Amino acid sequence: MSVMWTVKVVSLGVVALSFSLELLGRLFCRLRSGRTLHEVLFFPSEVACVEHIFTPTSAHPCFCSLPHGVETSFTRLLRRILSASSSLDLCIFAFSNMDLSRAVLTLHSRGVTIRVLTDKDYAAITGSQIGVLRKAGICVRCDMGSVYMHHKFAVVDGRLLVTGSLNWTLTAVQSNMENILVTEEPELVQPFIKEFHRLWVRNDPATYLCSSDQKPNQIKH
Amino acid sequence: MSVMWTVKVVSLGVVALSFSLELLGRLFCRLRSGRTLHEVLFFPSEVACVEHIFTPTSAHPCFCSLPHGVETSFTRLLRRILSASSSLDLCIFAFSNMDLSRAVLTLHSRGVTIRVLTDKDYAAITGSQIGVLRKAGICVRCDMGSVYMHHKFAVVDGRLLVTGSLNWTLTAVQSNMENILVTEEPELVQPFIKEFHRLWVRNDPATYLCSSDQKPNQIKH
Repeated sequence: MSVMWTVKVVSLGVVALSFSLELLGRLFCRLRSGRTLHEVLFFPSEVACVEHIFTPTSAHPCFCSLPHGVETSFTRLLRRILSASSSLDLCIFAFSNMDLSRAVLTLHSRGVTIRVLTDKDYAAITGSQIGVLRKAGICVRCDMGSVYMHHKFAVVDGRLLVTGSLNWTLTAVQSNMENILVTEEPELVQPFIKEFHRLWVRNDPATYLCSSDQKPNQIKH
Repeated sequence: MSVMWTVKVVSLGVVALSFSLELLGRLFCRLRSGRTLHEVLFFPSEVACVEHIFTPTSAHPCFCSLPHGVETSFTRLLRRILSASSSLDLCIFAFSNMDLSRAVLTLHSRGVTIRVLTDKDYAAITGSQIGVLRKAGICVRCDMGSVYMHHKFAVVDGRLLVTGSLNWTLTAVQSNMENILVTEEPELVQPFIKEFHRLWVRNDPATYLCSSDQKPNQIKH
């Protein structure tokens, strides 16, 4: 009886200990596997062919004169944008980069919901891709309520923030000192989602074209 | 004997369990108290008096016509910059904002080590504060190796990153749609520290003035 009792109590102790250790182990695993994604990219980017980003399964190699198979800041940026599977909210001052335009059009053709908010003046300059996006049926709104709508951020699938100093132009990508910060940190992503929504609603043409007394540039911030 | 043995084993189990629970508790406490600082500020900022940011203990109230005691995006930005106690590394495209200039000069007078890296063209435009900082004895270097040194970031005390779309100008603060992201996340801060160091060394006048064959704008990125 005494031996049986001892065995039972020892077993209970072992079970309690192993249960606690497993709990600790799972917690550590969760902390490790659930690590928040962060990435920083600097520009100018090395100039390289980006065809493989758009057609990774193509049987025909690209014969352009640029270096091939090189991973650069720009290819990483393109991959982040192209990772969108449900939505892309883009808030951009200047947008003339053809590869980034192709990325947005590719997402649109895949059925990804795209909203573009841009600066009213820069939308119309030579080389701007805003008209191309509009022609493709992508929903674009121009900010009417500030001197410059100077943001340069995108929110991918409502969870990944891509922001920084970089406008979506060729000069910014290939010639300037620029930065892009990529993060999934909710405390950083959520305010940008909220701000995008605020600006999107505020610049709804249905609202500001109907009432001359309440143009967005008269709304107090 | 049997009873004593039982008591010992039970005690051992209880100790193991309480030890594991305490470990879990401490882990949670550490996760909670050690939370990484994140903040997002949007602009344009409400226009308000910032005198109390510079002279919080002053006995004489400010009599300017602006609203007083208002916490805005700009006062928060100023507080972040003024929180520097040992160093401020600033990498900025355009710098003409007088209040931000005053903040940098205040830090300089407190003995904070300041390094400013800026764009060669924008450093000389009318209203630029770069000359004022240089006259005060602050170390300034101009980037010579790109079309535009378009960054707008600061690293406070080697641990806090302040970055975004906002140039340090009055228009950016009061009139444009802009963003500032503040974070202590090491995975985001460290690359900016590294990049600042790279650009600072690369734009050392002692290097690029001595050799006409190796001007920074000829260095391959």
